[in-house]
Amino acid sequence: MTRSITILGATGSIGASTLDLIRWERDKWDVKALTANCSAKELAALAIEFDAELAVVGDETCLPDLREGLSGTSIQSAGGSQALCEAAALGADVTVAAIVGCAGLAPVMAAVEQGKTIALANKEALVSAGDILMDAVKRHSATLLPTDSEHNAIFQCLEGNDLADVRWITLTASGGPFRTWSHEQLAEAKREQALKHPNWDMGAKITIDSATMMNKGLEFIEAWHLFPVGLDRLRIVVHPQSVIHSMVEYRDGSTLAQLGPSDMRVPIASCLAYPERMDTACRPLDLPTIGELSFFAPDEDRFPATKLAREAAVAGGAAPAVLNAANEVAVEAFLKGNATFTQISAIVARTLDKELPRAPTSLDEVLAVDAEARQLAMTMLEPA
Amino acid sequence: MTRSITILGATGSIGASTLDLIRWERDKWDVKALTANCSAKELAALAIEFDAELAVVGDETCLPDLREGLSGTSIQSAGGSQALCEAAALGADVTVAAIVGCAGLAPVMAAVEQGKTIALANKEALVSAGDILMDAVKRHSATLLPTDSEHNAIFQCLEGNDLADVRWITLTASGGPFRTWSHEQLAEAKREQALKHPNWDMGAKITIDSATMMNKGLEFIEAWHLFPVGLDRLRIVVHPQSVIHSMVEYRDGSTLAQLGPSDMRVPIASCLAYPERMDTACRPLDLPTIGELSFFAPDEDRFPATKLAREAAVAGGAAPAVLNAANEVAVEAFLKGNATFTQISAIVARTLDKELPRAPTSLDEVLAVDAEARQLAMTMLEPA
Repeated sequence: MTRSITILGATGSIGASTLDLIRWERDKWDVKALTANCSAKELAALAIEFDAELAVVGDETCLPDLREGLSGTSIQSAGGSQALCEAAALGADVTVAAIVGCAGLAPVMAAVEQGKTIALANKEALVSAGDILMDAVKRHSATLLPTDSEHNAIFQCLEGNDLADVRWITLTASGGPFRTWSHEQLAEAKREQALKHPNWDMGAKITIDSATMMNKGLEFIEAWHLFPVGLDRLRIVVHPQSVIHSMVEYRDGSTLAQLGPSDMRVPIASCLAYPERMDTACRPLDLPTIGELSFFAPDEDRFPATKLAREAAVAGGAAPAVLNAANEVAVEAFLKGNATFTQISAIVARTLDKELPRAPTSLDEVLAVDAEARQLAMTMLEPA
Repeated sequence: MTRSITILGATGSIGASTLDLIRWERDKWDVKALTANCSAKELAALAIEFDAELAVVGDETCLPDLREGLSGTSIQSAGGSQALCEAAALGADVTVAAIVGCAGLAPVMAAVEQGKTIALANKEALVSAGDILMDAVKRHSATLLPTDSEHNAIFQCLEGNDLADVRWITLTASGGPFRTWSHEQLAEAKREQALKHPNWDMGAKITIDSATMMNKGLEFIEAWHLFPVGLDRLRIVVHPQSVIHSMVEYRDGSTLAQLGPSDMRVPIASCLAYPERMDTACRPLDLPTIGELSFFAPDEDRFPATKLAREAAVAGGAAPAVLNAANEVAVEAFLKGNATFTQISAIVARTLDKELPRAPTSLDEVLAVDAEARQLAMTMLEPA
């Protein structure tokens, strides 16, 4: 029996990992749509390899290249943000939502409205539009499965259990490349140093987020929406080896943890096969060779990002969207040499200190809050 | 809504932990029967405290003391091994089977035949009579829940999953007090040194089994019966802190682990409340304070017991029962100063090398194999 799948963001790293798994059990999947922003050639090649029904580029100017790549095939093609939403609305059994940034919001919502399964990799959908998204998931009886290794770990640890029995949900954090650095060293941290993540090979933005620990802050907000046990039952533990991806402690004193290699194919496979399991080529866990797992309490003095995220969650309304937008502006400034490493969190904090827009009640309002917060954050940048 | 419970072995450590949990939610439980071997006074006091219907001593000579302790109450009393089976057959919603040794076999079977839930703490039932027990569990549609911290951990990690999806089941072992000792040191190991377990406070026999790692060998055989994934999917990892109680790796590369304090109330609570959870007073897991978890491959050269157990499982038939009986004889000899520490495994190995009795097909035959193996093992003891 085959299942149908649509991958929004097929040419990114989540898309590549997903397609690697599909390749692994090719006969079980029927690929409906694949989308990319503008990597037209690559998208065309994937659409042909996987015999997709439809290929879509978000950036309409890339459509001619896509058409050229697909010439001589019967694969349909389209371009533009409306076309992305139409791809998401095809009603595939599973839609992998891996478009990065706010551009992913409308397609995620279009997929949710089909009431099928969504494997969610887009952070903004939960951080900036969490209330709206979770409400839509409920209304359309959609199944939302998180592909993030931490949230997927929590999801697995909750299997067969009741949220009411949870004492603690613990997100693990690698602590990033600067885990042991002093305040003084952090103030001098360079772009190249921040881009070296100890355990995962990821994009520049998320790698910097990992160095500031804002990545964990954003995941904290995501976890708060996905697993509504209340903010006071969510905590973060620093675990440099990133072998334990997260854990859930129950009221009887049992803690369940999910462990695995630093390989996104593991959580994605868990989403694709849910509620069953599928084979992957991922290497088995070899704890005697790893030798040691260590754990530390987070230091929110040196790494204030998780504190800012928790405060934004407590404040609610527009605050998480503002936090996310301000962070994007600050990280971009750091990557361009227009802000120091420690200024990243300072810029986010100063932006959150301003009068916030009112709570968004629709995706359009989320986008407006996002734009407004970006402008506000820009004014917080000091001349380099 | 109350549930009824019978505790076979109420005055031992599993019994005490169970009653501690019942005390914690006293209004939810209706205690049917409590049993002990001969601790009549203690049993009478517990029966009165928990308002039991019936109290039974296995040793009939202790019945007068029990009757005296219960005088003036309406609690019924009885003595002898048949009475233990009658207590087990009362059909409580949950029967905790915590009688130590082969004396526990018949009562466990009597409980299984009621088709209710059995929280199993008796090792012999699975090690020496595993095939017979598991067959009876199936026939009577009983629910068998393991109270051992390792097997309970595995049980929890399998929740909502299919055995067919399991790549590995990993039992963790503390490695005991002699984990880092050389061959030469082990040959000189003293009784008092072997009795110091690093993480758990247990009886003398099981503490010695932990030092030789035969405890893990017996658990290996138990796991093989409880979770029939095949011997080649079962392994042991040494984990001195005993924080991870065991784990299950699935074919997608996800490993689920159960962690917790070294407190038997945690796995017992998981059995009592199954498939739900109940509150316990157990302290929460604080990994930053623990700091570090370490893992080593077992050294079966220094600690051959796990190898012997695996070989006994492969041989099947009477071998596991012979392994268990020979080990009891050898441990007793060590505790009495009639065997050295390294002779314990040697005695077991030599006994298993002899011609084994044929595979037992009934509990009586298991008891006969046990008696025969004990006699054989006695002949393996060298004069001290």
